[in-house]
Amino acid sequence: MLEQVTYFEDYAIGDGRETTGRTITETDFVVHAGHSGDFFPHHLDAEFCKTLPFGQRIAHGTMVFTIGVGLTATVINPVAFSYGYDRLRFVKPVFIGDTIKSRVEITDKEVMEKRPGYGRVTERLTVTNQKDETALVADHIYMVEMRP
Amino acid sequence: MLEQVTYFEDYAIGDGRETTGRTITETDFVVHAGHSGDFFPHHLDAEFCKTLPFGQRIAHGTMVFTIGVGLTATVINPVAFSYGYDRLRFVKPVFIGDTIKSRVEITDKEVMEKRPGYGRVTERLTVTNQKDETALVADHIYMVEMRP
Amino acid sequence: MLEQVTYFEDYAIGDGRETTGRTITETDFVVHAGHSGDFFPHHLDAEFCKTLPFGQRIAHGTMVFTIGVGLTATVINPVAFSYGYDRLRFVKPVFIGDTIKSRVEITDKEVMEKRPGYGRVTERLTVTNQKDETALVADHIYMVEMRP
Amino acid sequence: MLEQVTYFEDYAIGDGRETTGRTITETDFVVHAGHSGDFFPHHLDAEFCKTLPFGQRIAHGTMVFTIGVGLTATVINPVAFSYGYDRLRFVKPVFIGDTIKSRVEITDKEVMEKRPGYGRVTERLTVTNQKDETALVADHIYMVEMRP
Amino acid sequence: MLEQVTYFEDYAIGDGRETTGRTITETDFVVHAGHSGDFFPHHLDAEFCKTLPFGQRIAHGTMVFTIGVGLTATVINPVAFSYGYDRLRFVKPVFIGDTIKSRVEITDKEVMEKRPGYGRVTERLTVTNQKDETALVADHIYMVEMRP
Amino acid sequence: MLEQVTYFEDYAIGDGRETTGRTITETDFVVHAGHSGDFFPHHLDAEFCKTLPFGQRIAHGTMVFTIGVGLTATVINPVAFSYGYDRLRFVKPVFIGDTIKSRVEITDKEVMEKRPGYGRVTERLTVTNQKDETALVADHIYMVEMRP
Repeated sequence: MLEQVTYFEDYAIGDGRETTGRTITETDFVVHAGHSGDFFPHHLDAEFCKTLPFGQRIAHGTMVFTIGVGLTATVINPVAFSYGYDRLRFVKPVFIGDTIKSRVEITDKEVMEKRPGYGRVTERLTVTNQKDETALVADHIYMVEMRP
Repeated sequence: MLEQVTYFEDYAIGDGRETTGRTITETDFVVHAGHSGDFFPHHLDAEFCKTLPFGQRIAHGTMVFTIGVGLTATVINPVAFSYGYDRLRFVKPVFIGDTIKSRVEITDKEVMEKRPGYGRVTERLTVTNQKDETALVADHIYMVEMRP
Repeated sequence: MLEQVTYFEDYAIGDGRETTGRTITETDFVVHAGHSGDFFPHHLDAEFCKTLPFGQRIAHGTMVFTIGVGLTATVINPVAFSYGYDRLRFVKPVFIGDTIKSRVEITDKEVMEKRPGYGRVTERLTVTNQKDETALVADHIYMVEMRP
Repeated sequence: MLEQVTYFEDYAIGDGRETTGRTITETDFVVHAGHSGDFFPHHLDAEFCKTLPFGQRIAHGTMVFTIGVGLTATVINPVAFSYGYDRLRFVKPVFIGDTIKSRVEITDKEVMEKRPGYGRVTERLTVTNQKDETALVADHIYMVEMRP
Repeated sequence: MLEQVTYFEDYAIGDGRETTGRTITETDFVVHAGHSGDFFPHHLDAEFCKTLPFGQRIAHGTMVFTIGVGLTATVINPVAFSYGYDRLRFVKPVFIGDTIKSRVEITDKEVMEKRPGYGRVTERLTVTNQKDETALVADHIYMVEMRP
Repeated sequence: MLEQVTYFEDYAIGDGRETTGRTITETDFVVHAGHSGDFFPHHLDAEFCKTLPFGQRIAHGTMVFTIGVGLTATVINPVAFSYGYDRLRFVKPVFIGDTIKSRVEITDKEVMEKRPGYGRVTERLTVTNQKDETALVADHIYMVEMRP
């Protein structure tokens, strides 16, 4: 983990980076069920899933989001604060054995009129699988301090 | 877990329910770090957190979301499909020892013009702590089959 | 999780329900070993198990019991208290990849002479695998309040 | 883990041993909920538990049983097979921070008429806390080979 | 777990024992990543690993060490204290599905001049896989009390 | 996680870096016991530990090593390969609630005569607690490619 101060002025639309990959395992499915308390058979019952269109267990949406976001957690910006997410969409299911990666890209920035000294930055998160298909997208909203 | 078919026509704006509570423990913090791969000191370093405004470790946003959603996973509706979330906001931090609950309420529904036989239902998720302060809100978007 | 008050008088012999299924994974084996502290090679050493009659790793009895009981934990009855279990039997081994379900059925009820206002209810638990073979049975004994 | 062959003839009523202790932590509560799928507020919601007679979270019965049995898993007897348990009773609740130990003692043995070459051994399991109060008892039934 | 007092004088060079085996699962890889915080793609990204000489995910060195040492933790010697390890070497990678065992052997002992009443014992740890190939070696250094 | 190629020639004795901190929780103790299989009461039995000089539970040496090393796993050098560790020493015990950090510093480098094109780099790892006391030291040995 590295710390790097990046002020509002330093963010440029179009800037981005891609993370390393992570294979989503059956273990992750079981851990996520136990952590969230969501034991729906869509995620945990292989027999039941044979009767569904996809024919196999499907990752919890909250897990793809959690791991997709987690993959990006490599550099701390002490002057940025997470505000929330917009337009979080589960585009394609993630299956056991899929390998996902995250790409983040700055897509918008604007001065916050109501909060002097801060700007609002939008970072588009895109989680893809090993076939480069998009599994999840979301717009991460940060508040970032302006250069003092 | 119970299964109960609820068609688009059966959803009424204002319908809602509240879940049981769950105390968020230090264990959940550690499990979430290990599951997500996000080991930022804001979540895991008690000494560092003493130097921050809140003075203590703060739950990962993805954890409050994951457990908040997980608390609602008690009744399976086989004709509803999660589409995503809008306006997910981290309103107040969750600390070790806080007890959270989720409340969901149908806030909108509309026929999907582009997808005959389906409607779109919006369910507002509100996660509160033991002081009844709101920690997180999000609008869950479902696609739901119409009555055949 | 739902809460529903059911008094002693409301239990009827023969009443029952079946749970959703859950696939027992290698992860569950490893988690149970780490949770219980039982690392016997029957559960964790695939090479050793090749030399045994079943030829593969066998689930801990305490795990089949724990998950079999856990599958039934969907409705809270605030006037019932678990007293214990009788005749817990490991009928057939559970292997990695098996999908288990639980069925519970009220098999007995009697007024508790020594504890006025309470009755004793016996609920037979049967855990089956995906071939509908019985893996485990046990008689759950509850104390339940009588209608006030 | 040690392996030691003990034939039916070698078991003597009254033989016993006591295990080392293990402190039951909040972590164990959370792990057990996630492993079993039982998120009842009696185990996980500290605020709700303040309204109950015990005033605090109570261990899952299946956890006290699992860890109580696990503590005894130190010596493998390759000629003994677990058959099940009788009279499993939850005598006193286990709380976060309690330290439990298990004691096992041979309380019965009999030749199995229907299964020549095998005997049936009953081992009484008693799980106690740090105040030497009994938390759980159960009679473990083994089938054991006779000396060849 | 058994307790057995063994004084410095009781250790003899050449004495040794072998543990039971344990199959290293994908679960162990995921748990170790989450526990250590090391999410390097060599351990967790199956796609990336296809491009490496071994063609598959490789166990963390710290995991082979941790589990290799853990397998030996069956008998407590209350008069011995772990001092550290010398010449810890990762000889061959461990893959998902490998079954490892540990062998320990006393290879050296000497009186501690600077610490009267104590001796220094060296125990060579060798972790092997199911093909009897050595995966890891290390020299464990203990301080052991002399016979009073 | 970042990738950065660093050839043998680029390592300079005295170069170093310090990691972020991580509070070692009771959860980590329980997870490490379950992961390693080492349930010695020194790590898990609070009552027993009251009778020892330190008066409380002590972290597994393998855990301090695992997390200490894990904290440093932030930058991948694709031309470096871990060879092993020398002089791993448990200097001071780590307790529940301690916050540890790792510091690594290059202390030695030499050309490998027997392996043309590679050099051997020694990186000293020092794990300290919140009082800046040293808990663990070890010399990490890498093989690193020379500049092509």
